[in-house]
Amino acid sequence: MSKAGKPAVAAADWGTTRLRVWLLDAAGNVVAERRSDEGLLSAQPDRFGDILERQLGEMGASASLPVIICGMAGSRQGWVEAPYATVPVSLAEIFGAAVSVPWTKRDIFIVPGLAQRDAATPDVMRGEETQLAGAAARLGAGRHLVCMPGTHSKWVELIDKTVTGFQTFMTGELFSVLSAQSILSHSIGTETKVAADRPAFLDWCKNALSSPAPVETFLFRIRAATLLHGLQPADAAAALSGLLIGSEIAAAKARFALDGGPVVLIASGAMHALYEAALGLAGFTIETVDADDAVRAGLADIARHFGMMEGAA
Amino acid sequence: MSKAGKPAVAAADWGTTRLRVWLLDAAGNVVAERRSDEGLLSAQPDRFGDILERQLGEMGASASLPVIICGMAGSRQGWVEAPYATVPVSLAEIFGAAVSVPWTKRDIFIVPGLAQRDAATPDVMRGEETQLAGAAARLGAGRHLVCMPGTHSKWVELIDKTVTGFQTFMTGELFSVLSAQSILSHSIGTETKVAADRPAFLDWCKNALSSPAPVETFLFRIRAATLLHGLQPADAAAALSGLLIGSEIAAAKARFALDGGPVVLIASGAMHALYEAALGLAGFTIETVDADDAVRAGLADIARHFGMMEGAA
Repeated sequence: MSKAGKPAVAAADWGTTRLRVWLLDAAGNVVAERRSDEGLLSAQPDRFGDILERQLGEMGASASLPVIICGMAGSRQGWVEAPYATVPVSLAEIFGAAVSVPWTKRDIFIVPGLAQRDAATPDVMRGEETQLAGAAARLGAGRHLVCMPGTHSKWVELIDKTVTGFQTFMTGELFSVLSAQSILSHSIGTETKVAADRPAFLDWCKNALSSPAPVETFLFRIRAATLLHGLQPADAAAALSGLLIGSEIAAAKARFALDGGPVVLIASGAMHALYEAALGLAGFTIETVDADDAVRAGLADIARHFGMMEGAA
Repeated sequence: MSKAGKPAVAAADWGTTRLRVWLLDAAGNVVAERRSDEGLLSAQPDRFGDILERQLGEMGASASLPVIICGMAGSRQGWVEAPYATVPVSLAEIFGAAVSVPWTKRDIFIVPGLAQRDAATPDVMRGEETQLAGAAARLGAGRHLVCMPGTHSKWVELIDKTVTGFQTFMTGELFSVLSAQSILSHSIGTETKVAADRPAFLDWCKNALSSPAPVETFLFRIRAATLLHGLQPADAAAALSGLLIGSEIAAAKARFALDGGPVVLIASGAMHALYEAALGLAGFTIETVDADDAVRAGLADIARHFGMMEGAA
């Protein structure tokens, strides 16, 4: 593996609760990386520039190093609003719609989110489009279904490098609020990590995938199973996770008229393991793209689009 | 209307957050009523007796007036556990399974909840069985579908005064946690009261009833509609309510193989209005039973079963 060269661009994923910055060389290799909890929630509106400069300074970035940013920093509550690009939209069009942050010494661009503006099926994403771009650049032409699990899971249809449609499922957030705030918290307790090979996860996932009954029919059964059948906390957590993930996949199959087949799974770690298992149960074959690799690759591609990768600063 | 006579029994609905006590005469008329926030959450385990006696004292009840209690006071975390009666179970069997509170000067009985112990479809209720009894005594023989909306809505199949099966839907709780704790709180804000004639409520309800797509497909659209289509907070609340109630009814239709027809709706106030509208959209004709009337009538029937209504104390 070749040694990373001089930084050509700083690439940042700036979300609600955290900021991640990478210095990338002209080939897209990571030269340096920093993580901070200075997400939108903790950043004062007029301090985004200061926060970024401090991170870049700590990494030894030059004063003229350009920056590409994706994530909630481009939202209305962020640094500078990067208005949604409207679907259907090509990757090139998304790149081209990046917004320049005014009044800064260095070039700083923020990637726009995507919006599906159909009256019946409105939807938005912000941040995931960059991971998508990073993964998509490496896929061939034709139709691809991309699954990006998370707090708000995104399923995206890509045809010849154009995003033709997408659908959000609040799966991660549903797991969060139900396990912590609802009656199910009495069944689940505090241990919410779920292993993908846990039988309760797989069983409840299978059920959700194969039963015509919708998720509402199953939710309270977790509570009843605790009271009547001695369901233990770790299995209750696994049951809820399997139920919600299985229900998401069943809904995605219907939404995109899928019957198994290949899916590109952009995920890492425990999330990847859970979705890999669930997608397998649903009859999908998975092509994995690491979530962090995808966002960095996407930011690098946008930097290339803006001519930032031709030399190092 | 005849004047209420001497108290024959004290009837209490003792839940998690509140206690309601009625003094009923031998005909079941309300002689006196008190409400207090001394639900399970605020009651010390050894203080249930004291709390009840104070309420009864305030109402001028005699020292020998018997008491029938329903609700969470009979749960494991309550006063005395009244173990679940297992479905299928007749109303008479439910009454007969009421548990006597030991070491009290007056006769005090707590009504058991119901459990459906099937491995695949476990479910429980506690408190609703008494409302059901109160409504059921007035229905004819044959099959009845009973809908009891709430934090955890219950749909119950009653055949010839026997509960043959039931299904819980966490509709009220889902509305609560999603509107207060999830991203949808940014769309909904603090005003969560929904009027049953609000177009957003009816539209989202209709959609949920008629679309094969499950509820997960629709949830985030409320957020997207706020961002893209200017959906206002009151309409966002109505949308979530219509979506969840419509989804519950669609799920109940599938669970009990219903296609419209008559439904007994045990509800009051705003909840009644919302479900009446939604059930109407779903093709049901509704027989209304006021929720408070139902619980009182149920407690009175159980008192009669124990011979408490033959004279006044």
